[in-house]
Amino acid sequence: MIAALDLEGVLSPEIWISVAERTKIDELRLTTRDISDYDELMQHRLRILDKQGIKLSDIQSVIEGMPLLPGAKEFLDKLRSYCQVVILSDTFSQFAKPIMKNLGYPTLFCHNLEVKDDRIVGYKLRQKNQKRRAVEAFKSLNFKVFAAGDSYNDIEMLKTADWACLFCAPDTVKKEFPQFRAVETYEELFEIVHELH
Amino acid sequence: MIAALDLEGVLSPEIWISVAERTKIDELRLTTRDISDYDELMQHRLRILDKQGIKLSDIQSVIEGMPLLPGAKEFLDKLRSYCQVVILSDTFSQFAKPIMKNLGYPTLFCHNLEVKDDRIVGYKLRQKNQKRRAVEAFKSLNFKVFAAGDSYNDIEMLKTADWACLFCAPDTVKKEFPQFRAVETYEELFEIVHELH
Repeated sequence: MIAALDLEGVLSPEIWISVAERTKIDELRLTTRDISDYDELMQHRLRILDKQGIKLSDIQSVIEGMPLLPGAKEFLDKLRSYCQVVILSDTFSQFAKPIMKNLGYPTLFCHNLEVKDDRIVGYKLRQKNQKRRAVEAFKSLNFKVFAAGDSYNDIEMLKTADWACLFCAPDTVKKEFPQFRAVETYEELFEIVHELH
Repeated sequence: MIAALDLEGVLSPEIWISVAERTKIDELRLTTRDISDYDELMQHRLRILDKQGIKLSDIQSVIEGMPLLPGAKEFLDKLRSYCQVVILSDTFSQFAKPIMKNLGYPTLFCHNLEVKDDRIVGYKLRQKNQKRRAVEAFKSLNFKVFAAGDSYNDIEMLKTADWACLFCAPDTVKKEFPQFRAVETYEELFEIVHELH
């Protein structure tokens, strides 16, 4: 069995929210709830960073200082000793690196930023619907897949997995997708995996 | 990029050889070089274990006491901080567990033993050609794949990867597959990944 976990909101705080708080630039708080087109949102973010002279290393410093969610490391350590774990995230490898270090380098499938002289000039999605595609790939390798996430970009992954649940999801997501069990603690999440295994 | 690494002979010693040495049962040294049919070989091994009253926990004790290859942990730590790593092995999860613990729980794709009351009653291959299939799956997710292994069951994986090399392979394998660069140290192996990345 493979457990496929979302990163932000499940193991770590939301990266852009943390960057917005630390830099005090409220516009960086915008999410796909505000600008539904992801590419438009990302271009908007990159323009703000440029305008404010914020470099990749500045953001990485913020992320390095960002604590994991309480209990996340202990939960992940326990889970990794129990079954295979792959983190499926729509963040970028350059942002994720300090988080992965704090988590003990679990395997991560995500995207990449395009960087020139420490300036973020663009981004490259490795693949559209990469979370769902990864779950499909694991299933094609005869793995049973359990998936957990907290937001809209996790729903396709949850639908494709053999078993799935929402973890600390907003009420809107829980109401819209009542087919998924919703849990709020790592203890409950581990218990689900334990019962499946 | 994903680095796909074989386990036995690359990061850890050969498990069956270690078990044969520790239990002083020479027949357990037989490999696919002696009995070319893998299923026949495994059934032969399971019969010997049964005859000698060797349980899963006995073998796990041997494996727990088996040191990693010198420098393996340091190499793997460095590699995991550098790119994604997945270990592709034809061993069984119950044998691999103590090794994975010593390696800091990297992601492992392997097979499973069927166990009843600590007695190994059979085994279940998750998939035929699982190493090659995993590399194909990673490529379908738009990853570039580097693969390294030491023996015949790695060749399909090496052929399918974008880049590949042999690591501490026997001369017979090196001679038969001269298309693959053959390296003998973790420094050389890391240098290859570093140049590709």
